[in-house]
Amino acid sequence: MQLPHPVTTQFFSVQDVATAIHQLGLPTVFQRLADTIRADYQRWNDFEKCARVANHSKDGVIELMPISDGKTYSFKFVNGHPKNTQIGLPCVMAFGVLADVATGIPEFLSELTLSTALRTAAMSLVAAKALARPGSKVMALIGNGAQSEFQALAFHYLMGIEELRLFDTDPRATDKLLANLAHTPLRLTVCKSVREAVRGADIVTTVTADKTNATVLSPDMLERGMHINGVGGDCPGKTELHPDVLRASAVFVEYEPQTRIEGDLQHLPADFAVTELWQVLTGQAKGRVDAQQITLFDSVGFALQDYSVLRLMRELAKELGLGQPVSLIPELVNPKDLFMLLQPELQPVAEATGRGKAKMAA
Amino acid sequence: MQLPHPVTTQFFSVQDVATAIHQLGLPTVFQRLADTIRADYQRWNDFEKCARVANHSKDGVIELMPISDGKTYSFKFVNGHPKNTQIGLPCVMAFGVLADVATGIPEFLSELTLSTALRTAAMSLVAAKALARPGSKVMALIGNGAQSEFQALAFHYLMGIEELRLFDTDPRATDKLLANLAHTPLRLTVCKSVREAVRGADIVTTVTADKTNATVLSPDMLERGMHINGVGGDCPGKTELHPDVLRASAVFVEYEPQTRIEGDLQHLPADFAVTELWQVLTGQAKGRVDAQQITLFDSVGFALQDYSVLRLMRELAKELGLGQPVSLIPELVNPKDLFMLLQPELQPVAEATGRGKAKMAA
Repeated sequence: MQLPHPVTTQFFSVQDVATAIHQLGLPTVFQRLADTIRADYQRWNDFEKCARVANHSKDGVIELMPISDGKTYSFKFVNGHPKNTQIGLPCVMAFGVLADVATGIPEFLSELTLSTALRTAAMSLVAAKALARPGSKVMALIGNGAQSEFQALAFHYLMGIEELRLFDTDPRATDKLLANLAHTPLRLTVCKSVREAVRGADIVTTVTADKTNATVLSPDMLERGMHINGVGGDCPGKTELHPDVLRASAVFVEYEPQTRIEGDLQHLPADFAVTELWQVLTGQAKGRVDAQQITLFDSVGFALQDYSVLRLMRELAKELGLGQPVSLIPELVNPKDLFMLLQPELQPVAEATGRGKAKMAA
Repeated sequence: MQLPHPVTTQFFSVQDVATAIHQLGLPTVFQRLADTIRADYQRWNDFEKCARVANHSKDGVIELMPISDGKTYSFKFVNGHPKNTQIGLPCVMAFGVLADVATGIPEFLSELTLSTALRTAAMSLVAAKALARPGSKVMALIGNGAQSEFQALAFHYLMGIEELRLFDTDPRATDKLLANLAHTPLRLTVCKSVREAVRGADIVTTVTADKTNATVLSPDMLERGMHINGVGGDCPGKTELHPDVLRASAVFVEYEPQTRIEGDLQHLPADFAVTELWQVLTGQAKGRVDAQQITLFDSVGFALQDYSVLRLMRELAKELGLGQPVSLIPELVNPKDLFMLLQPELQPVAEATGRGKAKMAA
């Protein structure tokens, strides 16, 4: 009797991600992740893309984000529930899968709550490297919640940011951020208003969470040469920027059809010109044209950066020997005989391969 | 310091599904599953529905199938790769999730390879109960692959089918089916052709797998009063029935927008009349009108029956004490402090709750 075709799904947990970061260091992980994202964006046309499939409810959204390059398929499950923190839950929770396009096997199942925070910051970094003024030293960080440390450290380690100007409507969020960054040489200034935080900043990162059309940033706060890294406006009815902020800027996006629906761009007419970032990264479009221009990355989070982070996590799992198998898909002695799984007398055959039993332990 | 909000994801494996069936018996599981599907179809308008999101490649398809009733969200990941059996893999592999709409927590993660086979047969049963002639005793079963035992037994246990007339282009598939059904009182007749198998049948079930526009059933094979349970034509370019078979029948579908793209219906003009099954199940539309009519269920597999099977599996997990927790989502002492996960000195706090550690074991 032939052995079943192996159908191994590797599970990569939050603990595995944390262990990989402890072993390699956060700067290295950010660097490799940014490199992976940049490389994947540079082969943009290899990917079959679609806007994410969103299920909106009163207090939040649940989304599925699939993408494929014809060899590897990935998708992410992710929610966005701004009020979750009131009951002790993260606003954003996620997991995702890499599958083999040739066979459909879901090969790699990973946590993506922590990894989404990593990839969002790495994506912001890739955009800022292409769009912000070289030599940027000061970043305003508006919104000091779960994503803020990741933005702060990615820009500190790899963009040369030396000073952060902080603002949040919740002072405890800022206190938490201060404590978490105390081990770094970053100069941290707590500000009383967005206006105060933004003044003199080279880069302005907005990463607030309210599901509302907020005006965190208004056009009178803008200064020449600024780069705006707009991260929090990422859902219909959840925006951060006054429309005139976009009008005053050269606007760059991940995937135009999705950003028109979800980004701060949703408040602008359909013919308002934007540039997809991949065009800048491949040299097909200009990024920043001079030191006076205001550039804006209207980030909403696109499936491609989840593909990239899943790809990197699988690479790290292999490299560092992390993760473990789970029995998501049954192994069959005869693939046309699914019914065999219900026949107890046949089960010792599956166990005899040495795979069936171990994997059931997951 | 407050305890983290519990974020328990329950994992239900293939082994758990098999154990539940061993404990309750397959007839009971089919009955409860058909009841669950029928109840969910009867509240059709509670659901936010969309056609599944399909990623087609040369040899197959990978699909995501989300649905929500505003309280519970579900999705299924499923592939369809007809050539997989040549390398010892199932054509169809799947898993899925139930999530809480209010918070976004993915609460229940289940295998759906085996469960998809169960729900597909249970869905066929629900349709046949509403559409086939009462007193149907003989079923032709065209295609004797992975799904065939489930169709055979659901119709035997709960529809009163006493005789099966079998045909498959692969005689080994039929041999396997014969062996798997040997323990039942079903009369099994192996036929040399589809035509021979169909002759005199009350119900004709087509469940073939080739990704091609096949003509398994042609109009000259039809007999008055037949019910056709068309299961295998479920993808653009993957059909089983001659268009005139549909023209000769009253055609019923799960979700019209999806079936127009994926069902045997894809070969008919957009204005060809069909009835959605939920309308029959709620009494808003007629099913079979007389004993002479030919009825056809053009089944493609809709997200709602995956929602139903996930709902039943979660119920069985609770009832029978099956499944186990996995650490898909991190628990956070402070939900705005995701960064804490990277700080080893804080980890004993999470472990002290007694949850963190146990769940990492998955």
